[in-house]
Amino acid sequence: MEREESLSTAPGARGEPVEIGVGMIGHGFIGRAHSIALRKLEWAATVPSLRPRLVAICGRDGAATESAARRFGYERASTDWRDLIADPAIGLVSNGGPNGLHAEPTIAAARAGKHVLCEKPLGRDADEAYEIWTAVARAGAVHMAGFNFRFFPAVALAQRLIADGALGEIRHFRARYLQSWLVDPAAPVTWRLDGAAAGSGALGDLGSHVVDLARHLVGEPAAVTARTATFVGERPGGHVDVDDAFAATVAFEQGAIGTLEGSRVAPGRKNQLAFEVNGTRGSLAFDQERMNELQVHLPEAPEAGEHGSAAPAGMAAAGFRRVLVSEQHHPFLAQSWPAGHTIGWEDSFVFEFEHLLRAIGDGTQVGPLGADFEDGYRCAEVCDAIARAARTGTEQQISYRDLDDHT
Amino acid sequence: MEREESLSTAPGARGEPVEIGVGMIGHGFIGRAHSIALRKLEWAATVPSLRPRLVAICGRDGAATESAARRFGYERASTDWRDLIADPAIGLVSNGGPNGLHAEPTIAAARAGKHVLCEKPLGRDADEAYEIWTAVARAGAVHMAGFNFRFFPAVALAQRLIADGALGEIRHFRARYLQSWLVDPAAPVTWRLDGAAAGSGALGDLGSHVVDLARHLVGEPAAVTARTATFVGERPGGHVDVDDAFAATVAFEQGAIGTLEGSRVAPGRKNQLAFEVNGTRGSLAFDQERMNELQVHLPEAPEAGEHGSAAPAGMAAAGFRRVLVSEQHHPFLAQSWPAGHTIGWEDSFVFEFEHLLRAIGDGTQVGPLGADFEDGYRCAEVCDAIARAARTGTEQQISYRDLDDHT
Amino acid sequence: MEREESLSTAPGARGEPVEIGVGMIGHGFIGRAHSIALRKLEWAATVPSLRPRLVAICGRDGAATESAARRFGYERASTDWRDLIADPAIGLVSNGGPNGLHAEPTIAAARAGKHVLCEKPLGRDADEAYEIWTAVARAGAVHMAGFNFRFFPAVALAQRLIADGALGEIRHFRARYLQSWLVDPAAPVTWRLDGAAAGSGALGDLGSHVVDLARHLVGEPAAVTARTATFVGERPGGHVDVDDAFAATVAFEQGAIGTLEGSRVAPGRKNQLAFEVNGTRGSLAFDQERMNELQVHLPEAPEAGEHGSAAPAGMAAAGFRRVLVSEQHHPFLAQSWPAGHTIGWEDSFVFEFEHLLRAIGDGTQVGPLGADFEDGYRCAEVCDAIARAARTGTEQQISYRDLDDHT
Amino acid sequence: MEREESLSTAPGARGEPVEIGVGMIGHGFIGRAHSIALRKLEWAATVPSLRPRLVAICGRDGAATESAARRFGYERASTDWRDLIADPAIGLVSNGGPNGLHAEPTIAAARAGKHVLCEKPLGRDADEAYEIWTAVARAGAVHMAGFNFRFFPAVALAQRLIADGALGEIRHFRARYLQSWLVDPAAPVTWRLDGAAAGSGALGDLGSHVVDLARHLVGEPAAVTARTATFVGERPGGHVDVDDAFAATVAFEQGAIGTLEGSRVAPGRKNQLAFEVNGTRGSLAFDQERMNELQVHLPEAPEAGEHGSAAPAGMAAAGFRRVLVSEQHHPFLAQSWPAGHTIGWEDSFVFEFEHLLRAIGDGTQVGPLGADFEDGYRCAEVCDAIARAARTGTEQQISYRDLDDHT
Repeated sequence: MEREESLSTAPGARGEPVEIGVGMIGHGFIGRAHSIALRKLEWAATVPSLRPRLVAICGRDGAATESAARRFGYERASTDWRDLIADPAIGLVSNGGPNGLHAEPTIAAARAGKHVLCEKPLGRDADEAYEIWTAVARAGAVHMAGFNFRFFPAVALAQRLIADGALGEIRHFRARYLQSWLVDPAAPVTWRLDGAAAGSGALGDLGSHVVDLARHLVGEPAAVTARTATFVGERPGGHVDVDDAFAATVAFEQGAIGTLEGSRVAPGRKNQLAFEVNGTRGSLAFDQERMNELQVHLPEAPEAGEHGSAAPAGMAAAGFRRVLVSEQHHPFLAQSWPAGHTIGWEDSFVFEFEHLLRAIGDGTQVGPLGADFEDGYRCAEVCDAIARAARTGTEQQISYRDLDDHT
Repeated sequence: MEREESLSTAPGARGEPVEIGVGMIGHGFIGRAHSIALRKLEWAATVPSLRPRLVAICGRDGAATESAARRFGYERASTDWRDLIADPAIGLVSNGGPNGLHAEPTIAAARAGKHVLCEKPLGRDADEAYEIWTAVARAGAVHMAGFNFRFFPAVALAQRLIADGALGEIRHFRARYLQSWLVDPAAPVTWRLDGAAAGSGALGDLGSHVVDLARHLVGEPAAVTARTATFVGERPGGHVDVDDAFAATVAFEQGAIGTLEGSRVAPGRKNQLAFEVNGTRGSLAFDQERMNELQVHLPEAPEAGEHGSAAPAGMAAAGFRRVLVSEQHHPFLAQSWPAGHTIGWEDSFVFEFEHLLRAIGDGTQVGPLGADFEDGYRCAEVCDAIARAARTGTEQQISYRDLDDHT
Repeated sequence: MEREESLSTAPGARGEPVEIGVGMIGHGFIGRAHSIALRKLEWAATVPSLRPRLVAICGRDGAATESAARRFGYERASTDWRDLIADPAIGLVSNGGPNGLHAEPTIAAARAGKHVLCEKPLGRDADEAYEIWTAVARAGAVHMAGFNFRFFPAVALAQRLIADGALGEIRHFRARYLQSWLVDPAAPVTWRLDGAAAGSGALGDLGSHVVDLARHLVGEPAAVTARTATFVGERPGGHVDVDDAFAATVAFEQGAIGTLEGSRVAPGRKNQLAFEVNGTRGSLAFDQERMNELQVHLPEAPEAGEHGSAAPAGMAAAGFRRVLVSEQHHPFLAQSWPAGHTIGWEDSFVFEFEHLLRAIGDGTQVGPLGADFEDGYRCAEVCDAIARAARTGTEQQISYRDLDDHT
Repeated sequence: MEREESLSTAPGARGEPVEIGVGMIGHGFIGRAHSIALRKLEWAATVPSLRPRLVAICGRDGAATESAARRFGYERASTDWRDLIADPAIGLVSNGGPNGLHAEPTIAAARAGKHVLCEKPLGRDADEAYEIWTAVARAGAVHMAGFNFRFFPAVALAQRLIADGALGEIRHFRARYLQSWLVDPAAPVTWRLDGAAAGSGALGDLGSHVVDLARHLVGEPAAVTARTATFVGERPGGHVDVDDAFAATVAFEQGAIGTLEGSRVAPGRKNQLAFEVNGTRGSLAFDQERMNELQVHLPEAPEAGEHGSAAPAGMAAAGFRRVLVSEQHHPFLAQSWPAGHTIGWEDSFVFEFEHLLRAIGDGTQVGPLGADFEDGYRCAEVCDAIARAARTGTEQQISYRDLDDHT
């Protein structure tokens, strides 16, 4: 089947957007967020030229999957992801399954002529991520890795300010992603605490977001030093063989240095992905818990000292600006609510899917705004290097393989 | 037609939720927010027992209304609200039109056997609001006034803490609702700046929210003093005959005193509805621009001084807590995202409709959690008193009419 | 004796600063703050041309006053303020006594040829303040009212920005001064709760600061409406006959409107003097609990859209700036610590005395930067108007008497 | 001479505090802060039993030193620190000179029977710090390293909460000290940018504070990985051979992991020493730019669910508390201003000197609250390990020498 065959025009449409059938793997946390995003696209004023049709959703528990299908409006439910791959009505497979189930369905989908969105981390390690990337790229699919923080308006504004040179050359990047759900030693094991299923712990789960933002905002990491820790090795239900937390230093190819951190045992930090960037001209800072805000420090132009003040007004009033990123000229918000009417975490997925569908419709890939599988792979190289650095106690230089690298 | 006739069971359902047909008046700002909320209810895990069916949406511009109908999934569009009233498939009319179009359609809908949601302010003045309330109540409808801030989780938590006595007796309430969209003198007139259409300016638009929260959190205002101002009397397109801003003092029946303010000319304040409550035991504060947070000051229990510290740990660490209201035990969030994954302004309408539909399904009214039309009327009495106080320079005692009041 | 006689040159000085003998009335809270400020001036790099010599301190308790004299370096202690008035070595009397002891010693000092600093509020009401002002002014003294918040660098920066037009025309001023020391009903009565000694409660104590800042930043209040409340009428030690809290609306002569509040019963608010100013071009906000910061919103110049962004960088990054007012180009800080090394509450008194001593040395009065007794009197007129408005329930127009007013 | 000889009783004193003569090396930034602190002790209500007498101050520029002596009240000025060592009236030498002038005068002073306070970092490297420590300790002096952040009330409260177990076992410590004074490439070289004089750059200057707090709050670092960077190698006046910034990971002996950072090139960060500690029960965070505040997250006791709420009030209102550390039961503030009247950076030195003088008076050392020279040495071991780790790219285990270690 040709990939394009799944892009059918809507019944009776003339100039109407064409449809793409979506198959969703997983209906838990991420599957739900993805499904909601797809539905919200229906009424988005900025709807892309390609309209999603919710064909099938897949999960292990039949009844729960049926219920999810009904709720989110999928035409059918399945307990076997292979059903989705085999369905010619599906043109886009979104893989929100556990990390260990990223590779096989994603590659199979691409080889079956479908476009693919795969949650982060792309693979459980760089080798697996490389395999996914190269297989999918060779199959000719549009591919996207689920780094949804790129689609926060405040993060996109940060990226734009940096790209526009407003901060000058970047010298520091420091980021941390702190959660608290493992503070309680009685919290039971899940697949996220199982190395075989997850690959790593806080590193792959939280650290991959941090690393992706580092790459997105500053550029390629060149080297890292690091340490990891598992504070609670035994939990109800079994042994924990992944990290609870990691801490790393990073040097970027372009010269900046900084720190990267992640933890699942930080009391009071519910979902604090926070970063700060310092450049030669300015700085900015972000905290996901206040996701509609960006702190920005820019050089204030000295104004003509016409008022007899000791200092020009601009300079005298220099400081970090609390930018409420909620205006129509801000990224993704051209058709959103009036200024000051803020959005929520789930909206990042709306913007993510909107971007993906536009790319598919336009026949392009999702970069550089979106993360493609090469980004997913490169992120995994950095995470692997952090794990190696922690294990060996020595700095790890990071080298990235090309699509055709035979090493 | 009996009101109950419009509640049909879904096709083939056994124990399935029954449906209620919705007719939406307006497809602009509020009509869009309402429509989205209704659609989001489809997939809400906490869906009420009564499911909305989007029957018709109504607006003045035929093409735009058609487009909105298509986008949000209404079965049909109309340019005459009387069509909606006449439609037996519609059991709930939501009135998001300009203030001057609240009374007639809302009363007509109720008299036609429909339940009604009307945007705030209920009427252009207390007399009109009283008329709407009493007519609708006598018609037997479930009625709700669109004070959506009650459905912010942080506001609902504030209300719960106060109701539970955590703050003791309330002594102060101070609130302000500041926007900046009229800072620019070149901003043109709209119906919101026309006294005949809007009733008042910042007072009815922003002040009604402030007054509703005052009543919801503290109780009935007993008296006010006030002043208003119109800073820009002529704008492109015509004369401005409503207030740009108001400031008032308030005394509550239960003894608390405070201030109420609203302005459309506050640079940098995009949508700052902020309030603070001080009681005999504690305080709390909220700012809509950080809608997922509530600041709470509670008395810290002195702990046994077992550590030899000069002061018990609790007392030494007393301070306003920044509560990130995003956990499943917080109001409305039982089925929401994990802690720290915040929601947006539009979600308040989801919770509002969920509450309304549950009330209709259960055959109850929406209070005291939701605002009914009596709340809408009482709020208007306070706003009128503020206007009178500003006009006369004298304190206005506020008296509220009962449903059967013949004065 | 001529006032100038008390300004002696230091022994053996050529070009050295001349000295002025200081007599301090009170050694409690304010007397201590004043004494410390005078001592800190010794080593200030920006020492005024007139050096304070600590001659005598006066208090009711002989032993405690002796101890204070020794600690702060006064040459002698006294239990009778008349001693200070009679002492030719004293050229400046600072009156930090209770409100009821402001008039007599202050007037006597001025008539004895001394310059005077009197704590706020100047008198217990406007009549008393007027009497103090006119008597002192006619005696030819330099006079200063102790509104020390004018000497916070962040407040002075606010004043400078407004005066320079950075905010345009001012439309709103809202301020509140909240404390919590009377939350506990077991807190005993002090002179501050006795109407005869204090004049009023939160109004004169906290409100006078709020009113002085309103006048300093925006201009003369023209009219007020108000209410007051006494929540705890009986306390250990006696009856409370002053207000615990007040709330007022204000209209300024130049057209702005706003609110003024004060309370001693706000849990968690230790010393929150907070204000916000909105003008036609910008806004600013201050909170004494973060006294080294000023929040400033200024219009961001649109930059040439050379980067292909949807919005110019300046606009996209508009927001309230957190200005850390700690740099050498900020008011009063030319010789202070490096940027980011913040100062404390007590330092405001250093800047206040420095300003006063410079005025005395230069033979000028302390305005408009400092508050003179006319400011103290005018502030009292506003406070009286607030009290009258609360008592009568009617708006009070405020008229100010001139120095030679015979009404 | 016996060290005790310099502790003379004040003339004519019976039960009066005895005096200790102080010799100050340096009159710039730190010398000025120290001198002010000594003067402020005169009037501190909590004055230690030993009163400082300002005997001599020493600097390279004769006129400037004379001026400083006069301003701060030293009996004499000198341009040779050996004068101070030789002066029997001096019992305490405070060394605020450049890092390269720490060892010789400090050791000489101790050997001459004086007690010593030496600014941080103690030496330019661990060897020098070890030499200073051991020489001074063997000489029998009371010794203190100038880590003044320990004497911030908020930091002391943090330390007390941790020591009392309020946070449980500590798992994470992350800290950074960011300044901006080298952002401008035209900023000229000073001794702080000269490796021979300073030892290192941001690492020794800013990092030593961060490391000292890590040790003070959490315990001994066991290993580090790190990197450093010099972004501007040539500045007006010469070559820069020290680091502009560093970033490190740290593992503590007790099991916690974290990050340490410092930079002089972070735009908008004036003096941001910020840290966060996460334990098994709670978290806390501090930022020097808001030095009167501590953010504290403690477990909230579930209260009896008597109110029918979905969640107990305590839990529902859990969050980081903004503790305004300004009350009399907070560390060092027993005799300070009323709650909410905040202090400044310079006050930390008052508390530091008060503590030192009390230790000298009591014949004890300054630990564990204050940092002694062993702390100064151990801090230097960590800084050296960070420098080595950055140079070699390999994790550095840290071992600490004892007083009698002959390695």
